[in-house]
Amino acid sequence: MRPTIKDIAAKTGLSVTTVSLVLNNKPSRISAETRELVFKTAKELKYRPNQAAVLLRSGESKTIGLIVPDIRNDFYGNLAKGVEDYCQQHDQAVILCNSTNSYEREREHLNILDSKGVDGIILTLSATGSLETTQKTIDKLTNSGIPFVMFDRSVVSVKSNIVSGDHFHGGYLATQHLLDLGHTKIACITGPSYLEGSASRFAGYQQALEERGIALDQSLVVASDYSFEGGFDAFDALYKKDFSAVFAFNDMMAFGALKNMESKGIRVPEDLSLVGYDDVFFSQIVNPPLTTIHQPAYEIGMQSAKVLLDINAGTVAPPYLKIYKPQLIVRGSTKKI
Amino acid sequence: MRPTIKDIAAKTGLSVTTVSLVLNNKPSRISAETRELVFKTAKELKYRPNQAAVLLRSGESKTIGLIVPDIRNDFYGNLAKGVEDYCQQHDQAVILCNSTNSYEREREHLNILDSKGVDGIILTLSATGSLETTQKTIDKLTNSGIPFVMFDRSVVSVKSNIVSGDHFHGGYLATQHLLDLGHTKIACITGPSYLEGSASRFAGYQQALEERGIALDQSLVVASDYSFEGGFDAFDALYKKDFSAVFAFNDMMAFGALKNMESKGIRVPEDLSLVGYDDVFFSQIVNPPLTTIHQPAYEIGMQSAKVLLDINAGTVAPPYLKIYKPQLIVRGSTKKI
Repeated sequence: MRPTIKDIAAKTGLSVTTVSLVLNNKPSRISAETRELVFKTAKELKYRPNQAAVLLRSGESKTIGLIVPDIRNDFYGNLAKGVEDYCQQHDQAVILCNSTNSYEREREHLNILDSKGVDGIILTLSATGSLETTQKTIDKLTNSGIPFVMFDRSVVSVKSNIVSGDHFHGGYLATQHLLDLGHTKIACITGPSYLEGSASRFAGYQQALEERGIALDQSLVVASDYSFEGGFDAFDALYKKDFSAVFAFNDMMAFGALKNMESKGIRVPEDLSLVGYDDVFFSQIVNPPLTTIHQPAYEIGMQSAKVLLDINAGTVAPPYLKIYKPQLIVRGSTKKI
Repeated sequence: MRPTIKDIAAKTGLSVTTVSLVLNNKPSRISAETRELVFKTAKELKYRPNQAAVLLRSGESKTIGLIVPDIRNDFYGNLAKGVEDYCQQHDQAVILCNSTNSYEREREHLNILDSKGVDGIILTLSATGSLETTQKTIDKLTNSGIPFVMFDRSVVSVKSNIVSGDHFHGGYLATQHLLDLGHTKIACITGPSYLEGSASRFAGYQQALEERGIALDQSLVVASDYSFEGGFDAFDALYKKDFSAVFAFNDMMAFGALKNMESKGIRVPEDLSLVGYDDVFFSQIVNPPLTTIHQPAYEIGMQSAKVLLDINAGTVAPPYLKIYKPQLIVRGSTKKI
């Protein structure tokens, strides 16, 4: 149990008031001997002053909340590292919250963060639920008055502080790459359509097809949830159809699809080309190394933290929007048809 | 800028004292109209009461600190998820700190966590530095009086709360597996020797060799730092020597060694067998899937959080020690010689 002023009072036989006056250095008539006894006992008991008193004076918690779907996804690990690095440099602590892609849990976290009096929240919206549940989360945040920045995933209809990649351009680049290799039947495994990232990547995919005069084939589009298992299952829904390439809207789903292909004896890139999205660390380690769209996750994390602190300092006025250009990284999972 | 009581006072033309009395619901002679005006203005300005006041009363911060070497390593992502899940269930927030394997940064984090008044700290020691720097970190922690639990990595000489895997047994299992496949010349890429995990895995490796009457060949042992790059470089130091198998003391170093082997045209498992340690998610995704030692990272994280909260509640007496049995997972990276 953490020692309190009461424990010092009990041990010294002094009153709680006396101990408090000494420890808080308040003017009083307490003798030098008594003061010394209090300090000595505090040290013996390893008493630590409750820092809430300091926070109370400053009015700032010097703490921000970070909500990610799952810290085990390398992409969010990178984002979190960027947030935490910036915050450490600026003397801010980061409370980590995993929403596990659940909007109920997301809201529980918001309650906890509110109760901690955090100075701001950085969040990636969960990929389950619906536009309605997501809107409720945003409403809850807006009503709380806590400044917040959405990164990576946002909602199209919401005007807010957003730091994100250019998902439209990324979707376009991935599809264009496959078209350039001669693929015309390109399946795609999307994220939830109500999230801006997925909707925009899909629009980029459509745009690239359209420019080559290729009609969208809805039977080649499967919606999933950005997870490894989701990608694995999505490929089950696809594999009997006619296509020569797959564009998965994140690397985790691409890994899941790849695993499923392996189990079916389908070779990548000989039988099927595969493109992912994010460029997580393991994209270069899988065999074949994954062709993917690079998103500067670490920089997005850093920038999100910077914007939040700047908004709180009054040097940036909301709504703030910063979009990072993605980059095509060609590796071994795609080839000419 | 976060609105304060001063802002409400300025907007209403009331004194700060009046506003404070109303918002803190203190007995006073303030009229119902004035009270209503204060509450209305507070709502308009989205004023949030500073929760430090609540913390001050309870004496508990309901917040713990978590220090890991790098959240981007899937193993620590899993540990962190376990810690965070348990804490969320028990209404505790988790402040995330990455030490980046630097002991200087580790100590900066300890200072920040101390200043936040956290109720406890869960940490994995950094893998750089020396026994001396590590001992200083432990001394700092001990002197701070903050309860702490070391997980995964600990220091042999320190009596403290430890939740960890049985690293000796894991090292033994990995080596025994290679010996059973007929390998007698087994190179090993260790972590820093002053960390208990690496020292114990090495002792397990030695024990398994000894039981088969095989003398330890120090030229086949390379010390590294648990990173992908470290594993990559360690293989450069090894590859001209005579051996048929490599035991890397974590999966990240195994992935680094594997990448290096690929670049040299060395096939796994045809030319060399490879065993890792941890069983991170990507062990099953790399090609060939990695034979490795499974550690229940998520459970270790959960249990560490449980122990810390139990110690604070007085239901568990320190020093607490819990050791999880590791498990050999045979996949495609090892074969009979």
